[in-house]
Amino acid sequence: MDLYITQEELARALGTVQGVVERRSNQQVLAHTLLSAKDDHLQVTATDQEITVIHRFPAEVAKRGLACVHAVHLFQVARNLPDRAVHLVGQDNHALVVDAPPAHFRLVGLPPDEYPTLPAFEASATLTVKAGELLRIIDRTVFAIPADDQRYGLNGGHLESVEDLEGKTRLRLVTTDGNRLCYAGAAYEGEFGMGRHMLVPRKALHEIRKMLDVADADVEIAFGERAASFTIGTSVLHTRLVDGEFPAYRSVLPTNFQRRVVVNRVAFRDALRRVALEAIDQASTIRMSFADDEVLITSRGIDHGEAKHPVPMVFEGDPIEMGFNVRYFLEVVNCIDEDELVLELGEPLSPCMVRSPTDEDSLFIIMPIRLD
Amino acid sequence: MDLYITQEELARALGTVQGVVERRSNQQVLAHTLLSAKDDHLQVTATDQEITVIHRFPAEVAKRGLACVHAVHLFQVARNLPDRAVHLVGQDNHALVVDAPPAHFRLVGLPPDEYPTLPAFEASATLTVKAGELLRIIDRTVFAIPADDQRYGLNGGHLESVEDLEGKTRLRLVTTDGNRLCYAGAAYEGEFGMGRHMLVPRKALHEIRKMLDVADADVEIAFGERAASFTIGTSVLHTRLVDGEFPAYRSVLPTNFQRRVVVNRVAFRDALRRVALEAIDQASTIRMSFADDEVLITSRGIDHGEAKHPVPMVFEGDPIEMGFNVRYFLEVVNCIDEDELVLELGEPLSPCMVRSPTDEDSLFIIMPIRLD
Repeated sequence: MDLYITQEELARALGTVQGVVERRSNQQVLAHTLLSAKDDHLQVTATDQEITVIHRFPAEVAKRGLACVHAVHLFQVARNLPDRAVHLVGQDNHALVVDAPPAHFRLVGLPPDEYPTLPAFEASATLTVKAGELLRIIDRTVFAIPADDQRYGLNGGHLESVEDLEGKTRLRLVTTDGNRLCYAGAAYEGEFGMGRHMLVPRKALHEIRKMLDVADADVEIAFGERAASFTIGTSVLHTRLVDGEFPAYRSVLPTNFQRRVVVNRVAFRDALRRVALEAIDQASTIRMSFADDEVLITSRGIDHGEAKHPVPMVFEGDPIEMGFNVRYFLEVVNCIDEDELVLELGEPLSPCMVRSPTDEDSLFIIMPIRLD
Repeated sequence: MDLYITQEELARALGTVQGVVERRSNQQVLAHTLLSAKDDHLQVTATDQEITVIHRFPAEVAKRGLACVHAVHLFQVARNLPDRAVHLVGQDNHALVVDAPPAHFRLVGLPPDEYPTLPAFEASATLTVKAGELLRIIDRTVFAIPADDQRYGLNGGHLESVEDLEGKTRLRLVTTDGNRLCYAGAAYEGEFGMGRHMLVPRKALHEIRKMLDVADADVEIAFGERAASFTIGTSVLHTRLVDGEFPAYRSVLPTNFQRRVVVNRVAFRDALRRVALEAIDQASTIRMSFADDEVLITSRGIDHGEAKHPVPMVFEGDPIEMGFNVRYFLEVVNCIDEDELVLELGEPLSPCMVRSPTDEDSLFIIMPIRLD
């Protein structure tokens, strides 16, 4: 390998793979990244054996070749180099010379053939969605995938194709942790082909999210038997899918409601943030009392303090008092960017539905807490 | 207590004491702050029983009084309040009502008379120094006070009064961790009165530093028998002094040198930062080879990589190779803000003196490492 790349591109290239490399695996090679010099670009690959990302960056290649070096180490070096052209030269002993005068590095490497190969992947269906749309549906749902929870059927995001009222198909991402259920939808072209009993891992959704910085770009999603790939420009993320049957969520969606609330989102969010400061029990409990034209949000920590905060609302229905985990509520309110929120309520222990008034295709359900 | 204060002032007031309050003490009261409403201000006090800070903030006081509340808790509340006037009202049960409509808090408090009283302090001498000067001498020395080291004589900063070449007295702050010795000086007016066997604790210097944001302000330093106070405007920091005889450092200062180096500070710092990435042994060892018109800085981590970085220099003397802990060197280079640095060297294992060419009154000594 012998190539020139700008310091900025090299640092960006290594930055893109930091979330995927496995620092704590006992397989040392997973802490490494595979560099591949091709025609007019440097290809950077990282994998944790579930998720693989491959990015290309423009480079002036004098000699093709491979190098396998420690990903964090090379990233630190790249970030600290002078802001000029960087000369990368592979060595016979698998080392990589990084030359950016006056700085000169030689990094120890592994034999590139020890790097895991990407499992064979045959796409059975392919669809296209706009990057900005995919970003929106990930942001509105990914927080409800449990972080350290391996419960069957909950440990990933469920993708499905649904029909809207006009009969057009849309891509829907659904997540739940048992206390919340969130979904959001996006228009797509092409063929949806994900298996029914498959989920997209949480880490994969977080890594895909980082690739969606150009809202207008097309994302091609290809589905294989137990894997999917996401392609944006010259970047590819390949992920194994998690085996798991997502709960039959449609049957738990409330079909009607007895109370309807419209609030200003920012006022409601600020109130939740403040009242959260006294919600120090394990369930982060807050109380919401809906009556007339305001909802009064309160919390109380024994030996700590208490908070009260009214928020004006437009209310239809009879007064009601409900308890919630404020952290669950805040994550939902934080992912919505519209000016107003709609809450649809039933009985004190019935699920609370949160909707954006301008987005028919998103829904957030939060389970209430029983109050003493 | 009954007063109005702006949200901004209240958040600032609580921010100033966060570094002093003791979160982990088993004396619960030390995690609290004492609020005192006086004529036209709110006085905020925090102590860890070694260091006490007292700050005043303008407020509209309707009724004088005291409140003792959890410092971190009140700070979090204050930061999250609406940006308007905040009404603080003391309650009979030691609670504090924080009213900033629409937000309303009641914080549990302790009886104010449980709050530790400031030990009696009688000043035997007082001097005045400019805040900007005091900031400079703290920044140039405090990093060399060991953080978790209770070695007698090293666990604080040594203050003394010295005469410059023209016979004027100057305040000098001296620190050492056994591997480095740093001093810096500042002009002062008044009488120096600190005991010979006393040191200013590291934490006190860090907290004083935060009070020095107006370079032109006068800082009054008063010395008592085993304590000192630092007064800037309406803020006071009172600290116990540490018992400890600072090493007789003058006897170890090299009186001459055989080699003199002038380097550009930024180029030298960048080189050290880069070479540090491969200095992964326990001593963070780098090698400096001085010859002709450049110093070549190198490091090598077995199974990791190696770095080489030349820096142009103006050199007087015979070529020499020396080893250093790069972290020690970087802290010194980072605290200097001049364009150039002067290094004065003797033999490979003699102390290296780092000077700023424009500041006669600062000196940094770094002990070298024996190279294999």
